Amino acid sequence: MPSHPLTGLSAFPLTPMRRSGTRPGAAEHLDEEAVAHLVTRAAEAGADSVTMLGSTGSYAYLDRAERRRVVELAVAHAAGTPVLAGVGALRTSAVLDHVRDAEEAGADGVLLAPITYQPLSADEVFELFRTVCTHTELPVVLYDNPTTTGFRFTPALYGRIAALDGIASVKIPPLPADPVEAQDVVDAVRAAVPQHVTVGISGDPSAARGLRAGCHAWFSVIGGVLPEAAARLVRTGDDAHLAPLWPLFAEHGSLRVAAAAAEHLGLAPADCLPRPVQGLDPNARHRVAEALEALTSQ
Amino acid sequence: MPSHPLTGLSAFPLTPMRRSGTRPGAAEHLDEEAVAHLVTRAAEAGADSVTMLGSTGSYAYLDRAERRRVVELAVAHAAGTPVLAGVGALRTSAVLDHVRDAEEAGADGVLLAPITYQPLSADEVFELFRTVCTHTELPVVLYDNPTTTGFRFTPALYGRIAALDGIASVKIPPLPADPVEAQDVVDAVRAAVPQHVTVGISGDPSAARGLRAGCHAWFSVIGGVLPEAAARLVRTGDDAHLAPLWPLFAEHGSLRVAAAAAEHLGLAPADCLPRPVQGLDPNARHRVAEALEALTSQ
Repeated sequence: MPSHPLTGLSAFPLTPMRRSGTRPGAAEHLDEEAVAHLVTRAAEAGADSVTMLGSTGSYAYLDRAERRRVVELAVAHAAGTPVLAGVGALRTSAVLDHVRDAEEAGADGVLLAPITYQPLSADEVFELFRTVCTHTELPVVLYDNPTTTGFRFTPALYGRIAALDGIASVKIPPLPADPVEAQDVVDAVRAAVPQHVTVGISGDPSAARGLRAGCHAWFSVIGGVLPEAAARLVRTGDDAHLAPLWPLFAEHGSLRVAAAAAEHLGLAPADCLPRPVQGLDPNARHRVAEALEALTSQ
Repeated sequence: MPSHPLTGLSAFPLTPMRRSGTRPGAAEHLDEEAVAHLVTRAAEAGADSVTMLGSTGSYAYLDRAERRRVVELAVAHAAGTPVLAGVGALRTSAVLDHVRDAEEAGADGVLLAPITYQPLSADEVFELFRTVCTHTELPVVLYDNPTTTGFRFTPALYGRIAALDGIASVKIPPLPADPVEAQDVVDAVRAAVPQHVTVGISGDPSAARGLRAGCHAWFSVIGGVLPEAAARLVRTGDDAHLAPLWPLFAEHGSLRVAAAAAEHLGLAPADCLPRPVQGLDPNARHRVAEALEALTSQ
C-alpha cells in the first residue's frame, strides 16, 4: 500500500471471461479489454484502491497465468490508484507463487483468504499468514469470507494474525442487521487488532452500517461495476441510492448479480463467469435490469 | 473400469510429500517412491481397485504435473489392479484437463467431487458432471463429500446425475451410527440411482455398517495404509480389528490420522502433508502409534 493506510472505497472488479461457444466445456478466455475498462472506470470514479482477484474477481477459478495477467492489466490501467491482488489458493506453495507474481506485476498489496478443502485449524491458518508475511514486503489484507472458504475466524485469531509484521487490514464479513449488534462486532474486531491495522467491511448491503460503526474501508463488489454510486455511499454514509440491489444480493449472491449488472451495462460479455459458476436465469436478470433502471432514475 | 462394475475394496493411497526443510514455505516434492510403494502394497493385498488423488491423496492441493505423475506411477505399479484418479478442481476447464491427463496416464476411471468456492446450485453441479461425461469414455464416480466440498447432494440429484451415460458409482458420505437409519440412507440412494450404478461407502468407521446395509464398495482411507486389514473387513463384514483407530478418525479426521500412521510405519516421510495442512501433534501421534500396536497385536 502507498504511504497511507488502507481506507475508503476499494472497488472489486469482476474478471470477465469470454467463452468460445455454448457447448459443455467450451473454452473460456480472459476478456482483457473488459478488465482494463472496469479498472479505468473505478480509478476515474475516485476509488481509493482497486482489488483485483477478490471473490468478485473469481480468483479461485483462474490459473496462474490468468491471475498474473489480471494484475498487470490493473496496474497498467489504474492511473496510479493503488492495486491490491488476491493471492489465495488451497496450497501454501501456490499462494507464495501468486504473491511473487503480484509483486512482479507491480501490485501495492495482497489480499489473502484461507481457502479450505480439508478443514483447517486456527494454527494452520495462522501459519499460512505467517508464511506469506515472511515472504513479502507488500501489505497483506486478512480476508475473512466464511461462506466461500468454510473457515471461521474468531476475534482472537484476527488479533494473533494482525500482530504479524505486514498485516495492513482485516476484511470482515457482513454485519448483523441490528445496528447495536453490528457496532458490537466492529468494536470487538477493533479491540482485537493493533491500532495501525484498518478494518474493512464487506457484504455491500452492510457497507453503510459498517462505515457508521467505525470501519475504515469498504471492500465493495458493486464498486467494481458502479464505482460512482459506491463512492457516493462512502461520501454520504447513506446507501438509499443502491438499496434496490440489496434484495437481489441476498437472494442470488453478490457475484452473480454483479456479473448480470456488468453484462446488462455492456461492461462484460454475455455469460462472463467461469464454469461451473453460471449466471442468473432470465427472470433474475430482468429483475437486475429493473433495479439498475431504478438506480439511474433517482 | 474393467469389464466388471466397481465393487469391493477401493484403497485410497496418500500422496506423500517430502519437504526440503522446516522453515515456512519450504519446498515440497512428490515422494515418488512412497507413492509407488503404497500402490504396490494395496495391489498385493488384493484391493479391487486403487483410487489415487482422492481426498486422502490430497488432490485438491496438487498441481497438474504432480497429479498426472501420481496416476502414471499408480498405473505402473498396480500390477493390473484397476486405477481410478480424482479429477476434481474448482474450475470446470481444469477438471477437463485432469480427465485428459488421467486418460493419457492409463487410468481406468475417474472420481469427481464438486469442490466449491462460490456455493453451487444443483443445476451447476449437474452441468459439471454432464460436461465431464461428454468428454470421456472412462467411468465416472460421483464423489459426495460435504465436509470438504461444502456441497450437499440430495437423493434426487444423485438420481439425475447417475442417469448420465458414464456414471459408474456413487461414493456416499459416512452413515448415521444407528443401523436402521443407516439402512434407510442406503436404501434411499439405491432407489434413486439406476441398477447398474454401484453405491460405495466412505468414512472408514461407517464401512462395516455400509456394507451390511447393501453398499457394493468401500472407498477406504485406511485401505491405502493397511490394505490387508481393510481387505479383511470387506471379507468378514466385521471391523473389530480396526476399531482402535476410529476414535482418532473422529477426533482428527481420517487424512491426518492416515498420514501419521503411514509416517509411523515408514511408508511416508515425516510431515508428509502439503501445507497449509499440518500433521498431528506429538501427543496425537503417540495415540496413533498405540492404536497401530493394538491392531498388530490382535
